[in-house]
Amino acid sequence: MDQLRRDPVAGRWVIVFTDKPYAPKDFDIETLPDKKGTCPFCYGHEGMTPPEIQAHREGATKANSPGWSTRVVPNKFPALKIEGELNRQGLGMFDFSNGVGAHEVIIETPDHTKSLADLLDHEVEKVIWSYRDRSVDLHGDKRFRYIMIFKNHGFSAGASLAHSHSQLIALPMVPKNVNEELAGASKYYEYKERCIFCDMLAQEQSENERLICENSRFLAFSPFASRFPFEVWILPKEHHSDFSFIQTEDVIELARILKEILLRIKRVLGDVPYNFIIHTSPIEEQEREDYHWHIEIMPKLMRIAGFEWGSGFYINPTSPEVAAKYLRKAKIV
Amino acid sequence: MDQLRRDPVAGRWVIVFTDKPYAPKDFDIETLPDKKGTCPFCYGHEGMTPPEIQAHREGATKANSPGWSTRVVPNKFPALKIEGELNRQGLGMFDFSNGVGAHEVIIETPDHTKSLADLLDHEVEKVIWSYRDRSVDLHGDKRFRYIMIFKNHGFSAGASLAHSHSQLIALPMVPKNVNEELAGASKYYEYKERCIFCDMLAQEQSENERLICENSRFLAFSPFASRFPFEVWILPKEHHSDFSFIQTEDVIELARILKEILLRIKRVLGDVPYNFIIHTSPIEEQEREDYHWHIEIMPKLMRIAGFEWGSGFYINPTSPEVAAKYLRKAKIV
Repeated sequence: MDQLRRDPVAGRWVIVFTDKPYAPKDFDIETLPDKKGTCPFCYGHEGMTPPEIQAHREGATKANSPGWSTRVVPNKFPALKIEGELNRQGLGMFDFSNGVGAHEVIIETPDHTKSLADLLDHEVEKVIWSYRDRSVDLHGDKRFRYIMIFKNHGFSAGASLAHSHSQLIALPMVPKNVNEELAGASKYYEYKERCIFCDMLAQEQSENERLICENSRFLAFSPFASRFPFEVWILPKEHHSDFSFIQTEDVIELARILKEILLRIKRVLGDVPYNFIIHTSPIEEQEREDYHWHIEIMPKLMRIAGFEWGSGFYINPTSPEVAAKYLRKAKIV
Repeated sequence: MDQLRRDPVAGRWVIVFTDKPYAPKDFDIETLPDKKGTCPFCYGHEGMTPPEIQAHREGATKANSPGWSTRVVPNKFPALKIEGELNRQGLGMFDFSNGVGAHEVIIETPDHTKSLADLLDHEVEKVIWSYRDRSVDLHGDKRFRYIMIFKNHGFSAGASLAHSHSQLIALPMVPKNVNEELAGASKYYEYKERCIFCDMLAQEQSENERLICENSRFLAFSPFASRFPFEVWILPKEHHSDFSFIQTEDVIELARILKEILLRIKRVLGDVPYNFIIHTSPIEEQEREDYHWHIEIMPKLMRIAGFEWGSGFYINPTSPEVAAKYLRKAKIV
């Protein structure tokens, strides 16, 4: 019989097909052709984006001209605007405020044809440094409470441009999903006096059923209550709650394992649309004992329908044990 | 400046475009062609589904033969299976159980070409009665804690068959999203000693900015913190927490307003994919003071991307005030 599994952090239930799990060939994987027109993220088109906030550049090249390897720019169509004050107000029983926040785009490579999985390790490192440097900078803005870094790859995962990029949104309030994750982790900590993610690392390593790969600093596995087929989490082995405090050695090893996982996914599923999100603690002075930053990678193989919207239940037709087996066996050299 | 708005029940924030809201023409609305092959939901193909659980039938027609106007059958590919016990177990820090539950399909009409919006009022009434009768029946099964009734219309809203149908899933645990909604409503009740949804009805009626239509028993409006463009909620005017206790007069008026809203959406957006979900209380002996059942209708005009997945924030480019104006003005006669 299929299983109901509970995510110990978020408390959500997932229906996992353990009897007849879907294989990669059972999914319709959508790869849409690239949009026509001039790409604003390519060399020579730097003027098509707002002026760059930061870039990794070769030698003495000028800002907003070619010669960069990664480039961070404000989103041209931002969901939130950087100017102004929050100004929270009531309207009868409702609450609203001004749409204040930062919305930035990290262009990961000048090469229009390459995805993050195709970059060299040291190129991915620069992307991670961009995430980290922008996080640290925005930590200083007193209006913000949370910094969310994420990537949409492929049209049906929400990307509107094909050129490889990720995004950062700084928010004036801690989002609901983050609060829920923090609350779940904190409940466990109260009871056990241990970090729930540290315990998860230990159990995944000892069970060895859902592990995909690891290096000296990180572990990648298919989570026990995966919402989506071929979902992967990457956790630092050492306890840290805030991604923005990441140190050099961790940047190097994170770049290696992130690139490796994306390549494994590509080998198994082809150029599947996916999202990844860096789950990190809210902006705080100190690191927390009860939370552990990590990355969640979610290939987009399923349509989300009324049941998922209404319940927060998910139906995952590929058990994480089966998904991990495929991802482990993928040839990546 | 655009607004950040907070849903008072769920506590989620939405970025609402109030400066330059998107009009219906600004969306790419997907209408996919019908799949080829024999439709298992048409007259004469009753043998292609599992045997019917219930049907509204003309005269003396036999079960599992033509002559029905609505027909309820077990899902042929159920997410959960009706046989067996839950048997909750631990696996180290994780929890799982058998995939026990009910998964039924409500075929709303024998006419393959008609959607729920095209049916006559008295035909929609039979659909509502089917929802209600199946709910009441499943309330008797001690293994179940929650009954979720929902509809996926159109491929990108998750429908796998074009023939108009809705679904019911009976679950052995109360889903996370339902618990959150109950908790939000209960917090308000503790503070105000009033139902949050009753207050919402009163404020929407007095503000009159987001109302779409009403009848003697129900009100339909665009919610203040709509997650999606053209989202609509239908609330009974009288306080009731459990949909399965619905009485005859309410069934008649609910059929009328549901059909009217779906028709208004169709006039404004064309045959847009959508989901609707009946939000109702868990299976309990008595009605609750602090919760109010209702229907949430969500047209599928946006792609959900990493930001929404990670945060539980939504970006809604059409403010509910603008959406309500379009829906109010739609010609439906």
